[in-house]
Amino acid sequence: MVLDRLVEALREGVRKVSINQTVLEHHSKALTYHKASTPDVVVFPKSEEELVHVVNIAKQFKKPIVPFGIGTSVEGHIIPYHGGIVVDFSEMNEILSINPEDYTVTAQPGVTREQLNQALKKHGLFFPVDPGANATLGGMTATNASGTNAVKYGTMRQQVRKLRVVLASSEVINVGSAAAKTSAGFALKDLFIGSEGTLGMISEITLKVYGIEEYSAVAKLTFNSLQQASEKTQQILASGLKVSKMELVDAETIDIINEQSQLDLKVAHSLLIELTGSKEEVELDLSLLQSISENSTCELQFETDSLARAKLWQARHNAALSVAAANPGKGLMFTDVCVPLSKLTAAVMHARKVVDLHGIKASIIGHVGDGNFHVGFAIDQNDEEELALMHTINDQIVQFALEVGGTCTGEHGIGVGKKHFLRQEHSTTLEIMKGIKKLLDPDNMFSPGVLFDMD
Amino acid sequence: MVLDRLVEALREGVRKVSINQTVLEHHSKALTYHKASTPDVVVFPKSEEELVHVVNIAKQFKKPIVPFGIGTSVEGHIIPYHGGIVVDFSEMNEILSINPEDYTVTAQPGVTREQLNQALKKHGLFFPVDPGANATLGGMTATNASGTNAVKYGTMRQQVRKLRVVLASSEVINVGSAAAKTSAGFALKDLFIGSEGTLGMISEITLKVYGIEEYSAVAKLTFNSLQQASEKTQQILASGLKVSKMELVDAETIDIINEQSQLDLKVAHSLLIELTGSKEEVELDLSLLQSISENSTCELQFETDSLARAKLWQARHNAALSVAAANPGKGLMFTDVCVPLSKLTAAVMHARKVVDLHGIKASIIGHVGDGNFHVGFAIDQNDEEELALMHTINDQIVQFALEVGGTCTGEHGIGVGKKHFLRQEHSTTLEIMKGIKKLLDPDNMFSPGVLFDMD
Repeated sequence: MVLDRLVEALREGVRKVSINQTVLEHHSKALTYHKASTPDVVVFPKSEEELVHVVNIAKQFKKPIVPFGIGTSVEGHIIPYHGGIVVDFSEMNEILSINPEDYTVTAQPGVTREQLNQALKKHGLFFPVDPGANATLGGMTATNASGTNAVKYGTMRQQVRKLRVVLASSEVINVGSAAAKTSAGFALKDLFIGSEGTLGMISEITLKVYGIEEYSAVAKLTFNSLQQASEKTQQILASGLKVSKMELVDAETIDIINEQSQLDLKVAHSLLIELTGSKEEVELDLSLLQSISENSTCELQFETDSLARAKLWQARHNAALSVAAANPGKGLMFTDVCVPLSKLTAAVMHARKVVDLHGIKASIIGHVGDGNFHVGFAIDQNDEEELALMHTINDQIVQFALEVGGTCTGEHGIGVGKKHFLRQEHSTTLEIMKGIKKLLDPDNMFSPGVLFDMD
Repeated sequence: MVLDRLVEALREGVRKVSINQTVLEHHSKALTYHKASTPDVVVFPKSEEELVHVVNIAKQFKKPIVPFGIGTSVEGHIIPYHGGIVVDFSEMNEILSINPEDYTVTAQPGVTREQLNQALKKHGLFFPVDPGANATLGGMTATNASGTNAVKYGTMRQQVRKLRVVLASSEVINVGSAAAKTSAGFALKDLFIGSEGTLGMISEITLKVYGIEEYSAVAKLTFNSLQQASEKTQQILASGLKVSKMELVDAETIDIINEQSQLDLKVAHSLLIELTGSKEEVELDLSLLQSISENSTCELQFETDSLARAKLWQARHNAALSVAAANPGKGLMFTDVCVPLSKLTAAVMHARKVVDLHGIKASIIGHVGDGNFHVGFAIDQNDEEELALMHTINDQIVQFALEVGGTCTGEHGIGVGKKHFLRQEHSTTLEIMKGIKKLLDPDNMFSPGVLFDMD
């Protein structure tokens, strides 16, 4: 049987190879509504050499390869719709070096962000990119992830200095530089950041890290209307106040968070703002924030207790999971548009109107300091009508974003769920993207069907 | 005659076309030692449509196209070594829109950074990227330029949101997004940033801009030895102090600046540091800087007078031009390595040793907050021995940088002068770069011979 021969051949170079049904099923789905599909086999490499072996065997057996971090994909990138080999990076999780003088760290792609921050802490350092989930650095690089700190620190793209990548040719390449900047040739490093596993497998990542902020404070602004909350976002940013987090959580989501996390937050449309720096700087910023909020429609409350603050951010980070927990057995949709700041309020209000018109119970949360927000709701993914409605809602929200100069995805990526939007948003360059894919992966081995279909 | 027909064909779609000898000569050279070479013709388009026309005619006549901003290239990118058509962007210099709410601006590529900042000022905004010269935004994008503010704000790569580009196929594409972040498909925008004119002609640029800092202060630290100055750089950055500029200017350069700019700066190895923020923040940072500098080998002096500060930065910006003015008729070399911060002192001291060993009078200046520095010296570019010596010195400085994990160019780009270093630094990916060039410009029409030679 081919599968037996495939497994045997993989075992010649990879220590851990599994065809256990539970393992296959664990690697058959993403976090959201996308339909499951099992791989032929899952491998757990520990080294770059093992990755190279996997590529050689995949070529020999003409099997696709789908890289898998920790399984928190929102857009179905990691579902092996064409079967083949899933490469689970959980055992490539070593932090190779921490370089405090250079403010950099080099790690294997299976390291998670929490694991990294734990190790950095004793050097007084931290890594800012924080998608809600405890994702792997490889997965975060592959989707150009961001999260709550992006408004101050930028996305993965601004942190990745250097990558090692195993190509379809089984060559291993270095892209980028350990130096803080470089102008040497085409920015191939940036091509791999956000390539969603379609161009090769990342085997090593060098990241920029930062000194832990001396002091931080959190302010919570609550509003009677979503429009006021969104308008205040624009007003605060226009004032020049430098926030390190700026999150919108609507009343519907606060309600779910309260229930799922046993909290007692005031149920209102809320802006959660974090300010960081020296104690004196933060206090100056807080008084500026206070003056912007005076005579206004919101209620301002400072959260100085560190435990209460941690709880609040934990609740924010778990918002998506809370929505999931509140809807057991259902499929989840999280839209992910990002618009120019001047269009934020219009986009948020349009999205609210769309879900209301369709009678859908939805949560609106987002990294509004960057103009990025998510509309989350649950559907029965086995009901064709509900699926169709979900696509209609997502489509209307994306069309509005594209019309005002925004993008269909701020941080989740295209995966398999947004290919039609990529075609629309980058209609003038889709053929170039396919040309690059063909150049680097002529047999369409890596994550086929992600981003676009090769015809 | 072919030239007559070429000129006539270009005139059918471009208002201003010149074969005036003075114009051709003006477009035959860069700022530095590279040998001159005149184009067949220079065009001055005013619009994207005219750029498309130029591409069509170039294809018809099988002539290369070399984009030209304002002529401040250091590595010879703009010298038409294969003749053909130079496209001078000086008349595509309109600022199309300033969007204060979005903190963005959209401009034609011929706009210079000083012109942009003049226009932004009345909105309380500024654009931070400042290579010494008053370069164009198109040229700065094409080389991923940076300068003194990069340590705080990043390079061009961090500022460019969106580009329109005219391709060799004469198609016009959009890359990037007006939104603050996007994860939609391959980062083609980043491919064009730093492509040095080899992949197409940029016709429109959308950039991130920033609120003018409320307050700034400048500190000058002077040292008896270059090593102390460089070590202090590392010490200050390790302290976590957030600088907005951090420039090393060695005693030799201060001497030249004094002479050329009629200044009276203390002739000593100097670190020029700028701190920006609110008045209170800056004062806190200044006292931190003072405490780091106590009991140390340097002399610390604050410059609070804004005129004196402006003069100081002007002198720093003009350092390269001062070196040029001090050596009339000579060819200039500016090395441009960038190394991890922990290797900065070793790299600077190695460079000093190299020029001393060869008995060369050289200036060392640099954006040391990023680990980037330049060694500048003059040679007679018509003397083969002096040219060979120059290449030897540059080679030794670059080899050291590459050995410690750095890059051969932090901000000047590869051009025609560093192709052998690109081959070495990116030996594993040079063929991929050529593949991308071939995909986008199959006939090698744009800036042939820049970055690498297509065989």
